Amino acid sequence: MQNFVFHNTTKILFGRNTVASIGSETAAWGSRALLVYGMKSIKNNGVYGQIVSSLHDAGLEITEHGGVCSNPLLSHVRLSIEKAKNNNIDVIVAAGGGSVIDSAKAISAGALVEHDVWKFFTGKKSIKKTIPLTTVLTLAAAGSEMNSGMVITNDDTRKKFGFGNQRLYPKTSILNPEVTFSVPPSYTAYGAVDAVAHVLEFYMTATDPATPVQDRLMEGLIENAMDSCDRCLESPEDYNGRADLMWTATLALNGLTAAGLGKVGFPMHMIEHSLSALYDIPHGAGLSIIIPGWLKWFSATNPARIAQLARRIFPTLDCEDYTDKEMAQRGITILQNWFARIDSPSSLQEVEIPIADIPEIAANAVALAKVWRLKEYTRERIEEILHLCR
Amino acid sequence: MQNFVFHNTTKILFGRNTVASIGSETAAWGSRALLVYGMKSIKNNGVYGQIVSSLHDAGLEITEHGGVCSNPLLSHVRLSIEKAKNNNIDVIVAAGGGSVIDSAKAISAGALVEHDVWKFFTGKKSIKKTIPLTTVLTLAAAGSEMNSGMVITNDDTRKKFGFGNQRLYPKTSILNPEVTFSVPPSYTAYGAVDAVAHVLEFYMTATDPATPVQDRLMEGLIENAMDSCDRCLESPEDYNGRADLMWTATLALNGLTAAGLGKVGFPMHMIEHSLSALYDIPHGAGLSIIIPGWLKWFSATNPARIAQLARRIFPTLDCEDYTDKEMAQRGITILQNWFARIDSPSSLQEVEIPIADIPEIAANAVALAKVWRLKEYTRERIEEILHLCR
Repeated sequence: MQNFVFHNTTKILFGRNTVASIGSETAAWGSRALLVYGMKSIKNNGVYGQIVSSLHDAGLEITEHGGVCSNPLLSHVRLSIEKAKNNNIDVIVAAGGGSVIDSAKAISAGALVEHDVWKFFTGKKSIKKTIPLTTVLTLAAAGSEMNSGMVITNDDTRKKFGFGNQRLYPKTSILNPEVTFSVPPSYTAYGAVDAVAHVLEFYMTATDPATPVQDRLMEGLIENAMDSCDRCLESPEDYNGRADLMWTATLALNGLTAAGLGKVGFPMHMIEHSLSALYDIPHGAGLSIIIPGWLKWFSATNPARIAQLARRIFPTLDCEDYTDKEMAQRGITILQNWFARIDSPSSLQEVEIPIADIPEIAANAVALAKVWRLKEYTRERIEEILHLCR
Repeated sequence: MQNFVFHNTTKILFGRNTVASIGSETAAWGSRALLVYGMKSIKNNGVYGQIVSSLHDAGLEITEHGGVCSNPLLSHVRLSIEKAKNNNIDVIVAAGGGSVIDSAKAISAGALVEHDVWKFFTGKKSIKKTIPLTTVLTLAAAGSEMNSGMVITNDDTRKKFGFGNQRLYPKTSILNPEVTFSVPPSYTAYGAVDAVAHVLEFYMTATDPATPVQDRLMEGLIENAMDSCDRCLESPEDYNGRADLMWTATLALNGLTAAGLGKVGFPMHMIEHSLSALYDIPHGAGLSIIIPGWLKWFSATNPARIAQLARRIFPTLDCEDYTDKEMAQRGITILQNWFARIDSPSSLQEVEIPIADIPEIAANAVALAKVWRLKEYTRERIEEILHLCR
């Protein structure tokens, strides 16, 4: 086990009838709120109305900033930063999934500085203060509701970059599983893939794999993300299925899973970011394309970790007789079959990305590899992995 | 999944060379520190010296309050509250295990009120403010380093009571597994039993057992507490074993395991508190006596949960063919065998508590049952359980 600091200050209100608390939770931090949200879904499912009414009841002035899209754009964040500055915003409310919350985080840091917010993402400036942020989560996926990270796409350069800072933890996040009843099957699946991917990245890239307590937690979360996703797709209004998936996705990336693992990388996300930056496919769909290829590449030299995971969560009666290579292969196949079952693509071909584009995708990914300090991921290596994702 | 609030604000510094940070972490909260600790062990293993030196370097004035014993006593807490008041203490440092940290929590609340601190424990007063607390953990067991609970024994009435309040979370807790290298085998074992017991209580008494994500986390923690304890007993200076046990014990009772389970009870702890209050046996030793008897009693009407746990963490090739009753019995036997292996007693007889005392123990436990709202635990029921612990 490697040294670590764990300090997650977000307050979680989880369950039924919790959205009405957003007003009091937000009023504790300010009086002029910027309400950040996405497209129509929160208006259609009534969540927007509940939030506005609760904020009004708590005496908050509201400035709205809707229209955040998935793979949220820097240009839109910049507009909102201007709005926040012009309206002397002192608290931000994000109502949405990871894209909305990440946008709100970027605004919370960017509205308090004179320089361009993108300088935080390229590492040229560091965050010293932020506007307090509360959230109402509407999608089980990214984990942004209880972590200190954010990912934004620069629409000028087509770079999708992300990073973290202790000041970015939301103050309060409200997680009502009922809010996700109306999430369509595709995004339910992509969200579960994202949660699985977060844990897989840590599990596979841990510098120090001598961490049984962390392994058991991560195995449980992967198993449960898959299982609860299946239940949600079977019955979209299964409260316990939605609750299970929502809390699993939050725990997957709130600092708990990575504790003690040492330096971890996010190579699958790194390559995926280029897919969604260049082709604007959903992040989860991009991940289910990259995961099998990356695992195949990794298993050629490191089958033991994949084999351990597979023995734990996909046991067979005779699994002790399998070699690590065989067990790893079995694990990858089961994951791929799950992607097929939940209708999340698992090859470039399925989303009609031409093989001829691989060099361009790799060139895009290499730029992020440098920022994320994954320098061992050369253009050649990324191309090799992408060929395994065909 | 039931509604829950999760808001754990403690900062954890985990790993090697972390004790030297206690000065700066404490100086962030005050300048006149009360240093609370137990007996000689932290002086013998050098931790006391490291702490005092770090506090001095950070410019803190230190008032000492040593001598906290296991099953910490109200009379000693009261003395320390006077000391804190007389010295205008504005920050408290606890260096020890659960007994020391719990004493420090009681002081942190009691030193800011005029009434007797015991009124918090009997529910006659509620905590409105506390003196900030930092800790250096020296024993993997109670979880007090990252939670909001405390347990103190009233030496006048022989009542061992506990309760929680959001203001009792330590600000920072330093967990260096090396500090526990010198913990003797007995207390290593008792600590692991305590961690297992915390999770077992939640797992068995959950009002809503439809929480697979929580079940997987709890199963992983129980399995790992047992496994890492075995490794520590085999090699007391096995860093990874100590680290694993330490972090497992912290996670077992930091709010994470109970999230979403609904109302949970602590019946095994409740009965154990009477054993350690009346006979002053170590808490973990008392728990390993109560656990098998309580589980036997519980399995008569509720074998399914015990069976699920046993299938998950003690699988056999043919475990699907077992009935729940058989599987529950198998699980209880494996636990009892583990207690025997780690040399923690699993019957009243082993610690020479006479059967004739059962009515008196039950009478003592009933008082706590009322405070902890476990009213279904009548004197008769507690006696019945105690007879299964003979």
